[in-house]
Amino acid sequence: MEIKDLREIVDNISFLADERDVTMIRNLIVDLHPADLADIISHLSDDHRKFIFEMLNAEIASDVIAELDEVSKIDLVEMLSESRLSEIVDEMDSDDATDLVSELPEALAEKVLKKIDIQDSAEVMELLRHEEDTAGGIMAKEFVAVNQKCNVDEAIQIIRQKSEEVDNIYYVFVVDDENILVGIAALKDMILAKSNTKISQIMDRDVISVDTDLDQEEVANIARKYDLVSIPVIDGKGKLVGRITFDDLADVMEDEASEDMQRMAGIADEEEFRETSAFRILKVRLPWLLVGFMGQLLSALILKNFEASMNQIIASAFFIPIIMAMGGNAGIQSSTIMVRGMATGEITIFHIGRRVLRELFVALLNGVICGILILIVIAVWFGKVNFGIILAVAMLTVIINASMTGALVPIILRKFDVDPAIATGPFITTSNDVIGLLIYFALITVFLPWV
Amino acid sequence: MEIKDLREIVDNISFLADERDVTMIRNLIVDLHPADLADIISHLSDDHRKFIFEMLNAEIASDVIAELDEVSKIDLVEMLSESRLSEIVDEMDSDDATDLVSELPEALAEKVLKKIDIQDSAEVMELLRHEEDTAGGIMAKEFVAVNQKCNVDEAIQIIRQKSEEVDNIYYVFVVDDENILVGIAALKDMILAKSNTKISQIMDRDVISVDTDLDQEEVANIARKYDLVSIPVIDGKGKLVGRITFDDLADVMEDEASEDMQRMAGIADEEEFRETSAFRILKVRLPWLLVGFMGQLLSALILKNFEASMNQIIASAFFIPIIMAMGGNAGIQSSTIMVRGMATGEITIFHIGRRVLRELFVALLNGVICGILILIVIAVWFGKVNFGIILAVAMLTVIINASMTGALVPIILRKFDVDPAIATGPFITTSNDVIGLLIYFALITVFLPWV
Repeated sequence: MEIKDLREIVDNISFLADERDVTMIRNLIVDLHPADLADIISHLSDDHRKFIFEMLNAEIASDVIAELDEVSKIDLVEMLSESRLSEIVDEMDSDDATDLVSELPEALAEKVLKKIDIQDSAEVMELLRHEEDTAGGIMAKEFVAVNQKCNVDEAIQIIRQKSEEVDNIYYVFVVDDENILVGIAALKDMILAKSNTKISQIMDRDVISVDTDLDQEEVANIARKYDLVSIPVIDGKGKLVGRITFDDLADVMEDEASEDMQRMAGIADEEEFRETSAFRILKVRLPWLLVGFMGQLLSALILKNFEASMNQIIASAFFIPIIMAMGGNAGIQSSTIMVRGMATGEITIFHIGRRVLRELFVALLNGVICGILILIVIAVWFGKVNFGIILAVAMLTVIINASMTGALVPIILRKFDVDPAIATGPFITTSNDVIGLLIYFALITVFLPWV
Repeated sequence: MEIKDLREIVDNISFLADERDVTMIRNLIVDLHPADLADIISHLSDDHRKFIFEMLNAEIASDVIAELDEVSKIDLVEMLSESRLSEIVDEMDSDDATDLVSELPEALAEKVLKKIDIQDSAEVMELLRHEEDTAGGIMAKEFVAVNQKCNVDEAIQIIRQKSEEVDNIYYVFVVDDENILVGIAALKDMILAKSNTKISQIMDRDVISVDTDLDQEEVANIARKYDLVSIPVIDGKGKLVGRITFDDLADVMEDEASEDMQRMAGIADEEEFRETSAFRILKVRLPWLLVGFMGQLLSALILKNFEASMNQIIASAFFIPIIMAMGGNAGIQSSTIMVRGMATGEITIFHIGRRVLRELFVALLNGVICGILILIVIAVWFGKVNFGIILAVAMLTVIINASMTGALVPIILRKFDVDPAIATGPFITTSNDVIGLLIYFALITVFLPWV
């Protein structure tokens, strides 16, 4: 849906909701995709949102809720009665239901789980046991599994039974009598085979699966590497316990990239793009600003200690910004490459040594070029060649230090299982600033007689 | 494949390649997935790489090449003879073939296109006409389309004919006699229908398609929004011309996120994570470092102009870093949220006004809090309340200015069809530094008698 269509339909629905014209609204929304309905609903005022949402039947309402962004979802759920909520959760796929239930207050979650279908409730409870950001935390219990002894015709009967419950059937998973995953069969191959062909004859035995506790980012990397449209999830014994489909993996990829970018920008917890509360935004942004604040107080302290040098050569103060900025920029370049390369799996510990050496070499080149440039500038502008040389050496040192910090800190954090993206933000920049200024003024002070 | 397995197999293959032990190598690699083979090959030395690659038959070689990262792909292609290259291109899907051909020197590309199957060659030439980053540039000509008059049995016959050529068949596209796309039918529904059912009875008429010239990032956003496993591509007349599958869209999502992150970090052109040439890395990183360099020379010029004030209150120099850093960090936070929110489609012009207002409010809160803190620090540390007030006002102003620049510049760039991510890097940081220092020292100079 185009933005201008969205705006028009939001305006129309707001108007009709004020008029309480249910028939007209129904006509407007009857053919819309749940994702578009979610878009519209997230743009309505609270009153209108509640009114429209209550018009939807439970099935569509559950599809819409699954498509909503976090902010709108929480806003909406708070408006719903317990019975309406249960009705909606009952219609959801197990993974979406689990997401929603996990965000409810505990007492309400328990009540909802008691009201819904007992099998659905058991599935949600099982899924809730897994960590949120793992394969087990994002998998769904809706999938088609057939025994390897089945023939194609029997498998099709199983698909028929499951077709209401399971969306996106492109493969059936093949298991043995112990429910151990042994293969995967494409619908395409089933359609082309004779109906009495054994599934085990057309299945692919080299099935790629993931363990329940694998991190979701790695699950997405595996899916992308092997071009998988859905991934079977197995437990420690190899038993098939769930399925993750491409649409959820696409969301994981986008979320992980957004999370990394935000961390790199010094946003502490993930901020929703549609966040409506300035105080919640403040809560995720202020902490890293304060880290920067404290770090730069240290810079001030360092500069105060070099007050004598600065008083003698006031020009040294003029170049504080360039020393800070060159270190900052070079450091961010290095750390961004490392953080992102590790996140997508393209940089592995396998060749990380060579990558770091290359960073060092690039830093050396950048440092020499920028050093020569600043030397020329100082010589021409101030006519002070010696001061220019000190500044050039400082710049070279600062760029190398910043690049190496930028390249190595993410690797070290990764070793200790800390998200490397955290390192790339204000933390590296601030420490590079502090160290850079220390290097710069230490050089000036040592070579002061010579300037 | 685990990293340690990869390392082991790379070591083994290197050893066997030195021994020229073809049989053992074949045994090692026969069961490997092309993506794993690609991984191995990209970790081998040039010599070994060439040796292993020449052992592969054209079909597997083409799968491997399609999975390689850009750096390894270009390295490898340069080693291949024209006839071997043609043989491999002939086996590739049209989209992968087009990617490869587009990277060849023109004369070589022409020769290869002449040698391959005439229909494949025509497809590649058609695909080459589209811009690289559009739906037309990433679509493939391999898909299954059936006429709406077909019944299920006839459609299955068409799938059978195409099943060798087309991977990942989960849907068939339904067209009319003019080849206009009219619907989409899931294999699941075909498998469950009677064989004489008309395709038009089971197809979904609300088919979501994209135009050939739609930007690939928007294509990926549409696929993610509507959970599409493959998207039909139509020309200006609504005729079906190609298909984009989830695996290519996953790559687009990862690439676009990586590109944005790199641009935000001041890396001019996309840098490959496995880039081996320090000079190519320098080429993409130095430009923005030099932009920062020039910008900070301007800072030096500004500071020189305020030399008199600085001489009178040398303490003013101590707080240059904190003024720069607070502006820089606050600006990056705002611009990252805007750039990423617009890239994923979660921030639209629809509610951008409210988002900017919220940024302003957050900046005000951050600025007031940090301002009060710095006032306290200065009052306690230096005992200079008036200087503290000036610094506090400067900090508030700088944070508001930086946040507003960070929020607004991406929106403005977007209006002029420039990638907003460019704005978030050294450009915004540098201009915020320059403006921040100007504000800070202007305030000090004006209120000098009062300090």
